[in-house]
Amino acid sequence: MDIPEDGKIKNLSTDCVIFGFSDETLKILLIKLAAEPEKGEWALPGNIIMRQENLDDAAKRVLKELTGLEKVFMEQVHTFGNVNRFPLFRIITVAYYALINPDKYHPEAGGRTSDVRWFPIEDLPDLAFDHNKILDYALNKLQRKIRFEPIGFELLPKKFTLTQLQSLYEAINGVKLDKRNFRRKILNMGMVIELDEYKEGVPYRPPQLYKFDKAKYDKLKETGLLSN
Amino acid sequence: MDIPEDGKIKNLSTDCVIFGFSDETLKILLIKLAAEPEKGEWALPGNIIMRQENLDDAAKRVLKELTGLEKVFMEQVHTFGNVNRFPLFRIITVAYYALINPDKYHPEAGGRTSDVRWFPIEDLPDLAFDHNKILDYALNKLQRKIRFEPIGFELLPKKFTLTQLQSLYEAINGVKLDKRNFRRKILNMGMVIELDEYKEGVPYRPPQLYKFDKAKYDKLKETGLLSN
Repeated sequence: MDIPEDGKIKNLSTDCVIFGFSDETLKILLIKLAAEPEKGEWALPGNIIMRQENLDDAAKRVLKELTGLEKVFMEQVHTFGNVNRFPLFRIITVAYYALINPDKYHPEAGGRTSDVRWFPIEDLPDLAFDHNKILDYALNKLQRKIRFEPIGFELLPKKFTLTQLQSLYEAINGVKLDKRNFRRKILNMGMVIELDEYKEGVPYRPPQLYKFDKAKYDKLKETGLLSN
Repeated sequence: MDIPEDGKIKNLSTDCVIFGFSDETLKILLIKLAAEPEKGEWALPGNIIMRQENLDDAAKRVLKELTGLEKVFMEQVHTFGNVNRFPLFRIITVAYYALINPDKYHPEAGGRTSDVRWFPIEDLPDLAFDHNKILDYALNKLQRKIRFEPIGFELLPKKFTLTQLQSLYEAINGVKLDKRNFRRKILNMGMVIELDEYKEGVPYRPPQLYKFDKAKYDKLKETGLLSN
């Protein structure tokens, strides 16, 4: 039996890639490691999986222990297991990811973590182990995913401008989009509803406000943007 | 250290979901288990990962050992690790998948395998362990993938009819498609080239032949079907 008495599966871990979107910026939640190896380095929140724990449950527990974040819906993204990815011994890690609104959570360092902080994706420190590679993989997956599924419902205010929605897509893709094309595509999808309201505090040509059509949005989540 | 001297990581395995397409049918490659537990049951080709082996290499080795198949390009699909998924002790498995042309390979049972065989996806035996669940997951991923990326290049003859191409999409999705819509979409993608040739041996209104535009096909593989 490979699993020791203390209940840890020492060659299997989970790492959480938590993306956040606020202030028109894509961010990533990192912890500062309080123990060797790589003490003092920034890393993705991650730790060893326990013997009596399903993988999804392990990811939730580890995220909560290290960052205080709860009730984050994470999806498995990929398993990384190259022979030398961890310096001391062989560890295979199952990576999870999520995209959340940072304003709704209050990170707090816990466990073997001395700090926890949001970093803008465009201004990241070098990460410990192979965590830069894991992050890149997850970002790529997120970029592909938003071509398939609607996003924004929990990330934008209830009423938003199309410019705000566009800045979300731009932040994730890391590219500027053509305004007219973007508006045409978004309106064609039918997931937003035009409101008879305009953004306040904008004196000249205030932009129109929109909201998500929740029923349509949920349906598209299920069937995908290409279904029609 | 959790890894014993014999070089196996006993709580980590890999399973291979090998889809095949021929005779207008989607198939799956299964092995018959020659050892307990579940001796005599059909299963996905899978086995324990070695200590000095990257995950991708392990999948290739296991597939070759159990089925004789080589040079199959597999992608990782998901890691399954529920506490009780294996009856004897905790095993987490990293699943890989591929879609190949069965006519180009010659399966041969090896290792702890007493038989290896293609089964039509619509007429499967009950599989060992949680392999039905793994297969379903991989099929779902394949179905999503073909909405994104072109398929068919290595699965159809060099010159094919649009009906043959349609039957590939239908076999994977398990649904009948509308002929006119399908043709319009495929031709819009620009990945097939109309030939000035017609299928032989069809006396009345023989169907026109097409071939893939390799350059366009490869580009779409890279950028995705939604890029334009």
